[in-house]
Amino acid sequence: MAEGQTWTTQLTKVEPNHLVVRGYALDEMMGRLTFAESIYLLLRGDLPPAPARALLDAVFVASLDHGPGAPSASTARTVASTGAPLNACVAGGVLAINKLHGGAIEECMEILGRAVTDARQRGCAASVAATDLVTAALQAKKVLSGFGHRVHTKDPRTTRLFALAAEAGVDGDYTAMARAIQEALKAAGKDLPINVDGAIAAVLCELGFPPALGNAFFMIGRVPGLAAQAYEEMTTQKPMRRIDFPAVVYDGPAERSLP
Amino acid sequence: MAEGQTWTTQLTKVEPNHLVVRGYALDEMMGRLTFAESIYLLLRGDLPPAPARALLDAVFVASLDHGPGAPSASTARTVASTGAPLNACVAGGVLAINKLHGGAIEECMEILGRAVTDARQRGCAASVAATDLVTAALQAKKVLSGFGHRVHTKDPRTTRLFALAAEAGVDGDYTAMARAIQEALKAAGKDLPINVDGAIAAVLCELGFPPALGNAFFMIGRVPGLAAQAYEEMTTQKPMRRIDFPAVVYDGPAERSLP
Amino acid sequence: MAEGQTWTTQLTKVEPNHLVVRGYALDEMMGRLTFAESIYLLLRGDLPPAPARALLDAVFVASLDHGPGAPSASTARTVASTGAPLNACVAGGVLAINKLHGGAIEECMEILGRAVTDARQRGCAASVAATDLVTAALQAKKVLSGFGHRVHTKDPRTTRLFALAAEAGVDGDYTAMARAIQEALKAAGKDLPINVDGAIAAVLCELGFPPALGNAFFMIGRVPGLAAQAYEEMTTQKPMRRIDFPAVVYDGPAERSLP
Amino acid sequence: MAEGQTWTTQLTKVEPNHLVVRGYALDEMMGRLTFAESIYLLLRGDLPPAPARALLDAVFVASLDHGPGAPSASTARTVASTGAPLNACVAGGVLAINKLHGGAIEECMEILGRAVTDARQRGCAASVAATDLVTAALQAKKVLSGFGHRVHTKDPRTTRLFALAAEAGVDGDYTAMARAIQEALKAAGKDLPINVDGAIAAVLCELGFPPALGNAFFMIGRVPGLAAQAYEEMTTQKPMRRIDFPAVVYDGPAERSLP
Repeated sequence: MAEGQTWTTQLTKVEPNHLVVRGYALDEMMGRLTFAESIYLLLRGDLPPAPARALLDAVFVASLDHGPGAPSASTARTVASTGAPLNACVAGGVLAINKLHGGAIEECMEILGRAVTDARQRGCAASVAATDLVTAALQAKKVLSGFGHRVHTKDPRTTRLFALAAEAGVDGDYTAMARAIQEALKAAGKDLPINVDGAIAAVLCELGFPPALGNAFFMIGRVPGLAAQAYEEMTTQKPMRRIDFPAVVYDGPAERSLP
Repeated sequence: MAEGQTWTTQLTKVEPNHLVVRGYALDEMMGRLTFAESIYLLLRGDLPPAPARALLDAVFVASLDHGPGAPSASTARTVASTGAPLNACVAGGVLAINKLHGGAIEECMEILGRAVTDARQRGCAASVAATDLVTAALQAKKVLSGFGHRVHTKDPRTTRLFALAAEAGVDGDYTAMARAIQEALKAAGKDLPINVDGAIAAVLCELGFPPALGNAFFMIGRVPGLAAQAYEEMTTQKPMRRIDFPAVVYDGPAERSLP
Repeated sequence: MAEGQTWTTQLTKVEPNHLVVRGYALDEMMGRLTFAESIYLLLRGDLPPAPARALLDAVFVASLDHGPGAPSASTARTVASTGAPLNACVAGGVLAINKLHGGAIEECMEILGRAVTDARQRGCAASVAATDLVTAALQAKKVLSGFGHRVHTKDPRTTRLFALAAEAGVDGDYTAMARAIQEALKAAGKDLPINVDGAIAAVLCELGFPPALGNAFFMIGRVPGLAAQAYEEMTTQKPMRRIDFPAVVYDGPAERSLP
Repeated sequence: MAEGQTWTTQLTKVEPNHLVVRGYALDEMMGRLTFAESIYLLLRGDLPPAPARALLDAVFVASLDHGPGAPSASTARTVASTGAPLNACVAGGVLAINKLHGGAIEECMEILGRAVTDARQRGCAASVAATDLVTAALQAKKVLSGFGHRVHTKDPRTTRLFALAAEAGVDGDYTAMARAIQEALKAAGKDLPINVDGAIAAVLCELGFPPALGNAFFMIGRVPGLAAQAYEEMTTQKPMRRIDFPAVVYDGPAERSLP
């Protein structure tokens, strides 16, 4: 860059005693926008449409935590047990969010995008495009990101997120395509239901996010879980223990209903 | 750990098709709790008291982003410019959240906690305990975490967070002590106003959080900013450029008011 | 994994008071093998052939440091300036070693591997295969990893590494192909000489390493540089300064010759 | 920093086609200095004294690998199993190098430094200063970094490193103090022999390194191990497996002697 040349950002303006995010004063946002709405604003450049608001919270809540055995949480706890500060535990955990864990959202968004475009161009039903896509993937022995889970056969987060999306009217070609691919997999003898990554992918497609931002949603949602797991390890367990992850037992509050 | 021995977690129960966070079904939380409320629940073990809810959102929104020049954002952008995946950029940025950047919350919570305990034990006014604390710190040439900022002399985030805390009735010995220390610093000739870390520290003390969880709040709030900065770098700038951070100019939407 | 099932490693055996790496007692290795020889043993499973030994050291020395402006060093220094511990600075720096910085070795090894296979299968000269490869890359507007550098037009590390490889007799189809690609680029009007990543890639191909281990060599060689950069930042600079990387001036010992 | 102001580094000079590390041309170093010698030069500013050379290699070789169960290796493997690139696995592993794992070198160097200074100032024997130090630590229930290991009661790496140090004449007040503390612990009923961190700490004190650089040696030595563990995980195991670390069995070459 030549002397005196500038470059631009469209995110945040920082002046002494004045902070502006995407045009709005940050202090005005505080108390007026929820955290989820502010994240949407920062990532997209504008306030979320009304129906999307509760849905965004649900996307982040769906990603909150999945116990100590999720690889990102295992990593955060292992790092914590060596005497690391909390931010190193969280950073370690974030490094374990990849294609096979939490990071399937981006790939699934690309799959859904290609399939919807394919159906539109051919003027065919979602089920036809989905069957072709599944046939090709099975022949190429390619895993379809967003389908199947090592623990859940019917992920409660998927069911709930799709119900909320339907209520909010955020339900269109992409959520339909996700369901069509699930059906096509079943018809091909593969019981690989839409997992939480796949459900989030479909919702983010409906909301118009680019695939390259997909994993950001999982990370943002899961960081509180990584912090909670690391903090619990630090405060309740012996340092440098050999952590036998499958041997964990839940000992928190008994199951209860929201008031 | 001996064969067959178990260990416990109080955070999340993971069973096939059933996820429970602190006693509540995760799918029930989705759509019923905001992201901020769910974070409080996960970290504390119970739902937030009503007045704390909007305040929690404000804490996270206050931490959202501070432009490309904040060290965590610089790190995320530098990593992004080498062709890294998004999670590596975010993890790199999280590693730059330390004592001197974002990580002052924990230390400030400890300072406020000691000062409030001191005032209570001596039965003296906050101003007396604050003056003693400031005198000791200046003599020891120790920086007081949570006071002073390299850009802002009157941080708009502090003003707003304290106003929201007062509205919510989350205003007591700790917020008073933060103000008393600011005054004591001024009386000693040091214009080091409460910065956003200090304001968050005071609010988290009022809400009863332990200092060791303080930096988690900044990290959770800032991760969306790190993702946004890295994504903007990836999509709008040339890879491997020499990033001249002070030369950035805001080119986003013009200043506007929330609807 | 079912109860009682085991899994295997071929790297290191750990028993009380007994450590074995690839069959050799670790304490016997100490004092008998150099660090570079031990790394080769650990990664490959056997001791390096005699001619490779000095060459391995040269590969690591070539990668040692490239000043504060290399993105990995910038990252390590930025993290250091926020008060981070040394390991967080190093980890941050390692996250900046990607496709476009240090991480080109893997891709270049794949390119050289494909080109050498192509020449062998077609029974053609390296120059023919190289020209075809360059033509295809230019048409597809694809960057060829391992060629070109933002600072050096004739990288002294490349010249020296190729000379040492020739002396050691580690000089064959892959180093020849690297030179052939450089020539083909020049013939196509692109002055993109083999950079240090490309030279290391050629040597590692000659030594029989798989491409997926290529970047490990750069990381291993550069970690000392990241530690040195972070330590210098911590001990000689003000915390939280805005680091103007291009403004750095070398102020170390005057140029001198090895004894 | 004001316009046009510069700052200095004493490490590396980067000019087009010319790289100088601590006064020596990097290309001249290649083939003339070992990797270990070059690391010493970079960190210290001058070439190592002759007796230190083999010792430096031994320090790094001692740290090379300790199987998949070491927390840094567990972290690298867990991250690898999620589909991460190699540098993310290594960075994750580096984040697990802390006070309780590999990071004890710095603290042990400080302990040895204080004890040696104490003995010199009081003009007393090492055994006297060591006994006082151990008594104080036991009363304060403080762990002495560098003593005791969760696997080894007589660490072969310690024995060997001390033998090599004696041979090299790098044997003085600090190695003597390490042994004196071991004896004092034993006399107090604590069988906590010098571990590899402690042995490295003593040698680095003898060589005149500052404690703040201590952990750099472990990191530099262990990064090849992290890369090897991650690469083995990637290439020989199923992704997203639940890794039962204690169930690992060594299946590498049978024990053999160096030629």
